[in-house]
Amino acid sequence: MSLPGGKRRVASMPTQANENIVTRLLAGDRRALARVVTLIENHAPQAQRILAQLHAHTGRAHIIGITGSPGAGKSTLVMQLARELRRRERTIGVIAVDPSSPFTGGAILGDRIRMQELSGDPHVFIRSMASRGSLGGLAVSTRDTVRALDAAGFDVVIIETVGAGQAEVEIVRAAQTVVVVTVPGMGDDIQAIKAGILEIADIFVVNKADRPGADQTAAELRMLLSLDDTRKERSWRVPILKTSATTGAGIPELADKLDEHLAALKESGQLAARGGRQAQSEMLALLHQALVERIEAAIGPEEWDRLVQEVVERRSDPYTTAARLAARIGLAPSHEPA
Amino acid sequence: MSLPGGKRRVASMPTQANENIVTRLLAGDRRALARVVTLIENHAPQAQRILAQLHAHTGRAHIIGITGSPGAGKSTLVMQLARELRRRERTIGVIAVDPSSPFTGGAILGDRIRMQELSGDPHVFIRSMASRGSLGGLAVSTRDTVRALDAAGFDVVIIETVGAGQAEVEIVRAAQTVVVVTVPGMGDDIQAIKAGILEIADIFVVNKADRPGADQTAAELRMLLSLDDTRKERSWRVPILKTSATTGAGIPELADKLDEHLAALKESGQLAARGGRQAQSEMLALLHQALVERIEAAIGPEEWDRLVQEVVERRSDPYTTAARLAARIGLAPSHEPA
Repeated sequence: MSLPGGKRRVASMPTQANENIVTRLLAGDRRALARVVTLIENHAPQAQRILAQLHAHTGRAHIIGITGSPGAGKSTLVMQLARELRRRERTIGVIAVDPSSPFTGGAILGDRIRMQELSGDPHVFIRSMASRGSLGGLAVSTRDTVRALDAAGFDVVIIETVGAGQAEVEIVRAAQTVVVVTVPGMGDDIQAIKAGILEIADIFVVNKADRPGADQTAAELRMLLSLDDTRKERSWRVPILKTSATTGAGIPELADKLDEHLAALKESGQLAARGGRQAQSEMLALLHQALVERIEAAIGPEEWDRLVQEVVERRSDPYTTAARLAARIGLAPSHEPA
Repeated sequence: MSLPGGKRRVASMPTQANENIVTRLLAGDRRALARVVTLIENHAPQAQRILAQLHAHTGRAHIIGITGSPGAGKSTLVMQLARELRRRERTIGVIAVDPSSPFTGGAILGDRIRMQELSGDPHVFIRSMASRGSLGGLAVSTRDTVRALDAAGFDVVIIETVGAGQAEVEIVRAAQTVVVVTVPGMGDDIQAIKAGILEIADIFVVNKADRPGADQTAAELRMLLSLDDTRKERSWRVPILKTSATTGAGIPELADKLDEHLAALKESGQLAARGGRQAQSEMLALLHQALVERIEAAIGPEEWDRLVQEVVERRSDPYTTAARLAARIGLAPSHEPA
């Protein structure tokens, strides 16, 4: 048993090479960008140094999250939206986040292939992110990839996640504008909405709106939104749009609403507040990583295992052991809870 | 803006009084137990000191998690299971965890009232836990309440959670045996299962099995389980039971399977391994809390806000700022990522 999350990050690439890849990425070199995203995905030691240098060049992209149940047609919608935004002369980065489940892999692959249609365009960059390890890790990789795409100068970065669970909520938290996609006759989708999606939606899309029941679904969503007390103080009224991703109907209206939402975020000061929350949580996560490394350096895996074992065997308790450890690495005065 | 999670825990209750409540709880005093659970729920300063003393008296209860979609009949099932376990002369603690969503509140309340039928029995202790603040906080409160019920001597502790999202997965992680409840004709429930429930189920229950389609649902679950590669190395074959919580059919079989699973966990050494993982994650969480308190003491909220603002305004980046902070509180050598 070893300390979880304790991966020592040491620089294994000369700073010179890092600066080179950073310069190339900032100049719009797609191969440099692809390389940086791979380093991020692999949690490579030099990724943080590169990201630190990229940070100063971020903050210009509009970051859009698109989520919803499997089968809602999200990938087709993303493709159509990307086309519309290209017509408006925006450059677009797309991050398609795979679910951890192996079962939906096939369907996603089909969508992904359709998205390759866009990838001949030099102003579009599409990247699928596989889930390696934890979904928490995936949320970090997604956020870092957004940072790289933002620094590379894309006007819009779209994060597409499959599913509507808590893990996906975590992933789309990197977005400024969250679009939740549903389809007519949602049925149990309402449950998913209750589970946390309602709160994070900035725009609802009823996709496949040529099917029967689209108006009813839109009405149900409107009702659910009106019941949500937390919405009342907000300046933005969540629009419910009807689209057909296959025909393209409703896509220009979606692009308009996305622009409107970004403008509203800027005007209300929420864009700045959101940036503050994100910086804060990122700093805390990095400090936690430093904490884990410090414990590893201070006591080593054998003693850590012995301390865990003492707690398991009730010769100590987690509170007392943690308090002693905190004191030992200088985090807290030597005091014990019991 | 202030540092999240940074609540200073100082003892405001004399140790004498703590020992008194601990002694009474260990002697089976229900009012002492109820008081300790309230302290846990309120994140009261003395809760950790009490829990530290209770820890040595834990490790005897069988901790069972029951989860699944809303409307699957979980509460009725828990009530029936509790009755069956009482017939087997076990004492039972039930923790019913409310979802954060206000929409399902009404339905849950109805179930809760039905559960009060059991609460006249002195060997049954039922407690609803409200979601105050984050779901992460709720997972911690649930784990601590399990600790209190275990120390109080209950043979079985049942955690019931509504929903099947990532947050609920976090909550049932305190359990040794996880029962996932579904109903015939699941439809989109399959999606929920894909989202992470499949992996954590030790026992599947197809409830309301008198409805048409129960056999088909069971067959679909069996197929899904057979596709799950991560299962193959495990010694325990997940059973799929059919129950009717309203008539009580299948409940004795469920009680049998719960015993079998606990026996299998003990035999395979997984119970001990699980205890190790839990101790580890708890110690890390407590150390993280100490870290947050240390940062607060070292720099105070004004400087923290200023540092966050520097990152937001791109005058610094999160990596450099976090590395400097880590060095300042003695967590890391003074080195910068860039």
